[in-house]
Amino acid sequence: MTHKLALIGFGNVGKEFVRLLRAKEARLREDYGIEWKLTGIASRRVGWIANPNGLDTEALLAGRCPECPAWAAPKNVREWLEEADPDVFFEATSLDRSAGQPAIDHLKAALESGAHAISANKGPIVHAYRELRDLARAKGRKFLFESTVMDGTPIFSMVPHSLPAVELRGFRGILNSTTNVVLTEMEKGLTLDEAVKKAQEIGVAETDPSDDLDGWDAAVKVAALVIVLMDVPIKLEEIERVGIRGISPEEVRAARAAGMRYKLVCRAERTPNGDHAEVRADARAEAPAGVRAGVRVGVRAGLRASVRPEQLPLSDPLALLEGTTSALRFDMDVFGLSIIEHKPGVIATAYGLLADFIRAVSGAPIS
Amino acid sequence: MTHKLALIGFGNVGKEFVRLLRAKEARLREDYGIEWKLTGIASRRVGWIANPNGLDTEALLAGRCPECPAWAAPKNVREWLEEADPDVFFEATSLDRSAGQPAIDHLKAALESGAHAISANKGPIVHAYRELRDLARAKGRKFLFESTVMDGTPIFSMVPHSLPAVELRGFRGILNSTTNVVLTEMEKGLTLDEAVKKAQEIGVAETDPSDDLDGWDAAVKVAALVIVLMDVPIKLEEIERVGIRGISPEEVRAARAAGMRYKLVCRAERTPNGDHAEVRADARAEAPAGVRAGVRVGVRAGLRASVRPEQLPLSDPLALLEGTTSALRFDMDVFGLSIIEHKPGVIATAYGLLADFIRAVSGAPIS
Repeated sequence: MTHKLALIGFGNVGKEFVRLLRAKEARLREDYGIEWKLTGIASRRVGWIANPNGLDTEALLAGRCPECPAWAAPKNVREWLEEADPDVFFEATSLDRSAGQPAIDHLKAALESGAHAISANKGPIVHAYRELRDLARAKGRKFLFESTVMDGTPIFSMVPHSLPAVELRGFRGILNSTTNVVLTEMEKGLTLDEAVKKAQEIGVAETDPSDDLDGWDAAVKVAALVIVLMDVPIKLEEIERVGIRGISPEEVRAARAAGMRYKLVCRAERTPNGDHAEVRADARAEAPAGVRAGVRVGVRAGLRASVRPEQLPLSDPLALLEGTTSALRFDMDVFGLSIIEHKPGVIATAYGLLADFIRAVSGAPIS
Repeated sequence: MTHKLALIGFGNVGKEFVRLLRAKEARLREDYGIEWKLTGIASRRVGWIANPNGLDTEALLAGRCPECPAWAAPKNVREWLEEADPDVFFEATSLDRSAGQPAIDHLKAALESGAHAISANKGPIVHAYRELRDLARAKGRKFLFESTVMDGTPIFSMVPHSLPAVELRGFRGILNSTTNVVLTEMEKGLTLDEAVKKAQEIGVAETDPSDDLDGWDAAVKVAALVIVLMDVPIKLEEIERVGIRGISPEEVRAARAAGMRYKLVCRAERTPNGDHAEVRADARAEAPAGVRAGVRVGVRAGLRASVRPEQLPLSDPLALLEGTTSALRFDMDVFGLSIIEHKPGVIATAYGLLADFIRAVSGAPIS
């Protein structure tokens, strides 16, 4: 069966995803009986492009769009979906942290049109997870989003399938690459600004690194994990969030000299209901000295979640992480489990979309 | 629906599994619609016990068997299966490394009787994986074995479901607890014999620790991983296997002083077909000095696999593992992924059986 695919967002991730679809074409056909054609693509640059017979992906990847003049008729997502008529829709636009838009509207429109909806965008998980999940169920379609946290690393697909009936008590991890690179460079003697510049030069940090340095990117990931895996509809402002701007190079180096490393650590753990006051006090007491003044503490009854710089001993596997490597440790009733993603490139995010595609269209469990 | 369960092997793992079934009873019913009764149990001590109406698990766990006189009629596995009439069969007897028996016969009989077959026993994977897999398919039943490697940690369930269409190039890991504990104690100054005694005292090493010290337990796990995940029907004798008896406490301590740690490392990687000579030379050159004389090199065309002591730098996350903690790192085309299981107890193995049970009887993918 040939699946019609439509993709919004044709930046690094979107392009890499199309490349990976092409590279894995034979494997998909032979191992999964999956064939595909790209019938729709949309981005700020190319506009709303649709061709129900399939677009020329090679030309699109080469920056050409021979069909654009003929097929650029749609003016919005609904017209575009009608024209492209996808079986599977992929959302790969950039994050809008405050409301998750317009990605949420894209995903809703796709589900309503009868397509499976796959998102690499975290905003919709944080702002509309339950609504999208319920809409997908009502439509008999899948809403999947593996690549929103730790790229293609199995998290959202692993927990329900591979860890059924566990009691997930909490997690901790390192989920932001920019701060990881910046803190490592500060250990070597750079100032914060110099370290950020270095992270930008190697392609890890964005032009405006505020979302990373202030802990927003990590907090959005914590929210997604808590909402989906712990079934608690936490809001971003309920996550304690301390960035790394308040830590001086001297503090970073002093920690290193003492056998410790500063890392921006993400945490969530269940607490007894209503245990607000104590949690709030704890959180303040544990905040690193340099940032205590600017701490913002938000706690939801029954759960405490935080993103903040912590000093970790070198015996902690999280302390060893370098560069884009990220890690997550789950605390469960049956055992503890850590997942480490080693030095992923953009292909890892693209793979998350591909794996979700396979899971969405394989009716039976993949085994 | 109430599932009838039958279990062979009522040692530590079997008992813990029954305890966990009881502890998770409400969760199974509420979240998965699963009810169960234990209709058969068999072990060297209690014999073949079956009661199609359900055995008294509380009494069995307390070491009593009120129904034994009445129900101990079956004389072998087939009579017992007929009497217990299980929907799901669990194999938890101890490992027979050389032939995988009688566990293979148990699993075959169970599948032929129409039950799903779940094994905590590695022998059948190493000696009869394809046969059992094909028999299960022919019978429309599941053959699952998550707890054979790293207990309940998602490995065999994760790769097909959560990592579809990846190219698995190889893996490395630390999969044996006894040698991990023994090498750590030798770093602290104990001799091999003293360290083994310590490992026995804390319940990690068995009375006869040869299978662990000589690398057999680790080699069996490597074989299972290669056979199932890399689809190469490797034999145990094709895995290079060097145990830790040849390393002196002085060598262990000298490594530690130099910022390295000896670990019994498991490895497998694909090689070009027929690349035997080069691989053989490599393997010898890399073997630790103290054990070079006793090295046994076995290589299969297209794949090299080994279990041997290696010196790892402290910057390698594998070097940090202590006690029963185990880890596996997958080398894939899309990214690298490590899984760490932290300090599992016997409940982790029991959980692997429980998770397989849920996966076997949930018709649809669990998501």
